[in-house]
Amino acid sequence: MASDAKDIAARSLALHEALRGKIEVTVRAHARTTEDLTLLYTPGVAEPCLEIQRDYQRSWDLTRRNNLVAVITDGTAVLGLGDIGPAAGMPVMEGKCLLFKEFGDVDAIPLCIDTHDVDEIVRTVQLISKSFGGINLEDIAAPRCFEIEQRLKELCDIPVFHDDQHGTAVVAAAGLLNALKVTGKRMGELKIVISGAGAAGLAIGELFIHMGFGNVIACDRGGAIWRGRDGLNPAKQEFAEISNRENEQGSLADVLVGADVFVGVSRAGLVTPEMVATMRDGIVFAMANPIPEIMPEEAFAGGAKVVATGRSDYPNQINNVLVFPGIFKGALAARAPQITEEMEIAAAHAIAGFIPEADLRTDYIIPSVLERGVADVVAAAVASCVR
Amino acid sequence: MASDAKDIAARSLALHEALRGKIEVTVRAHARTTEDLTLLYTPGVAEPCLEIQRDYQRSWDLTRRNNLVAVITDGTAVLGLGDIGPAAGMPVMEGKCLLFKEFGDVDAIPLCIDTHDVDEIVRTVQLISKSFGGINLEDIAAPRCFEIEQRLKELCDIPVFHDDQHGTAVVAAAGLLNALKVTGKRMGELKIVISGAGAAGLAIGELFIHMGFGNVIACDRGGAIWRGRDGLNPAKQEFAEISNRENEQGSLADVLVGADVFVGVSRAGLVTPEMVATMRDGIVFAMANPIPEIMPEEAFAGGAKVVATGRSDYPNQINNVLVFPGIFKGALAARAPQITEEMEIAAAHAIAGFIPEADLRTDYIIPSVLERGVADVVAAAVASCVR
Repeated sequence: MASDAKDIAARSLALHEALRGKIEVTVRAHARTTEDLTLLYTPGVAEPCLEIQRDYQRSWDLTRRNNLVAVITDGTAVLGLGDIGPAAGMPVMEGKCLLFKEFGDVDAIPLCIDTHDVDEIVRTVQLISKSFGGINLEDIAAPRCFEIEQRLKELCDIPVFHDDQHGTAVVAAAGLLNALKVTGKRMGELKIVISGAGAAGLAIGELFIHMGFGNVIACDRGGAIWRGRDGLNPAKQEFAEISNRENEQGSLADVLVGADVFVGVSRAGLVTPEMVATMRDGIVFAMANPIPEIMPEEAFAGGAKVVATGRSDYPNQINNVLVFPGIFKGALAARAPQITEEMEIAAAHAIAGFIPEADLRTDYIIPSVLERGVADVVAAAVASCVR
Repeated sequence: MASDAKDIAARSLALHEALRGKIEVTVRAHARTTEDLTLLYTPGVAEPCLEIQRDYQRSWDLTRRNNLVAVITDGTAVLGLGDIGPAAGMPVMEGKCLLFKEFGDVDAIPLCIDTHDVDEIVRTVQLISKSFGGINLEDIAAPRCFEIEQRLKELCDIPVFHDDQHGTAVVAAAGLLNALKVTGKRMGELKIVISGAGAAGLAIGELFIHMGFGNVIACDRGGAIWRGRDGLNPAKQEFAEISNRENEQGSLADVLVGADVFVGVSRAGLVTPEMVATMRDGIVFAMANPIPEIMPEEAFAGGAKVVATGRSDYPNQINNVLVFPGIFKGALAARAPQITEEMEIAAAHAIAGFIPEADLRTDYIIPSVLERGVADVVAAAVASCVR
């Protein structure tokens, strides 16, 4: 494992050095003749400019913003590496842009913003937003990410989507929809425990509650989040109001007793087989990267019926790449001014429904990230929400 | 002419509608297997991120910023259209990006900033500058553009280049270098009159003075700019200090008497054949677009020896596309932290020298914009200035 990881690191570094960038800009028409220059640039280009000046909506027809997303970070929560700064975050952002293109045929460019100040981040994104068709926020530390997303949604006339929150929530919801089918557990009757109350954890919890999966309890390092607990940040306080029906207190192990579902977006090794054994035929989504809260073998040893992780070397990989290319592809195609929760729910059902019922198994509740076509069904489902 | 222009406008609009964007983002590697994803994205990508965190300079090897320029405008001086706003400026900016790629193989993306506030523009560009290898400012109204460029040069560790100023100055200088060769006029002994004292005019004047062409007088709507004239903005005041050796006053027609060179970056029809007749074997660069200060036929009728315009339908087209792709290509290749005047002068000599002396004629003092290879000689000249 350790030498594997070392090998992957060395090979990835060598690949990045050889590529000198994972994306590039190419032209959609060539400037080879005087006429090309006349029509693509001056003096002809004045006409599309004036057309957009007369009718702002025409910018969607006449420039690339119809298919262009900005992938924006402040570099504060890059992978599990923490605050590594804007330049060091770029390889991840370029990778994200590569996935946007490969899986959704969506153009995306990375922008790393060199400040931690919420006002400055919001203002910077707002000021450049008319060059794009959508904004994908990425790897911005919680709880700052909540305010940034909320304010940008109000200020921009294009979709603003924080993938770490909503992409993760959608793919987890898709997995859970299918996990219910293979276990016979029933929507609405579930007790769900989430480990991790940052960007991803709270977004998963909120979406699960709104979709009606059942009673959700989120845990942070201090244990269960309950109404009245001291020292909760505003996001957690709000979450306490809508979750944890019985207002249970105690540790993760305490509240996991009798749970149907565990969702981990926290860190390696927090869950033991003994804890899984206290669940009711547990569905375990242990999504910490690269090492899950509990390894699949151990979860099964504890009695889990379905196990999913973020890893590609085990079945049931829960990965946002199933979500964001299709979500933006659909939103851009429909010229949606925002990505609504209705769209997210439609996307979750589309991903779950991508696997024919007859093919569903406990080790195949979620499509492989390499199965092409997921983005198209997600895009169609998302676009159908725009009326 | 009018119906031609109407035809070009209609065809350009139709072309823009068909293209739906003149540039796009493409991938430099495909994500088709689990291993691809592992190396291009997680978990492998953590290693190049950490490498850049350890050594910021490594961002030049490991991400696309080594070849990536941001083309930035506030939409306030787009072509001759004036302040048409950020969305309406995009077709020009995308066109510029297309030219960057076609002529210099430089990746460029357009960013239109939705504010007129100098502080906000400067801060926005500064905050995103670590995602790029260079900043090309474009179509920002004077005199605001001077302050924005100056402050960004101080704040950013990558080249910042206002093409409307310096690109225009370099290509005009290249043309003048060759015009001297074909007319036998001598460097240092010239009287040069510039019509237009905005971004382009003052930059041309300053570069010409620093290159030692001779005595330069710039004119705005109020006539010659001289030391002591009332109501000059700070940029013009500074220019008055270094130009106009005899401190001549009067109209454009007044100071043009006895001049060797006219450079127009102003507007159609300001110069008559009678005015050209007062020059000494005039070299006339009438660069107003799309209609020059004087049409070539009229300039020759007035006795001009060499005439250049910005138009593609006459010989000697003076066009920035001969400059900016090569300047940035060279600066990026040499990882120059800025584009210096030394580099600009080297670029001017490289463009002038692109035409073999034996081929120089009064109607061929500047390479055609369609001649490939100019950017490479410019890039080599620029890079050779970095030690």
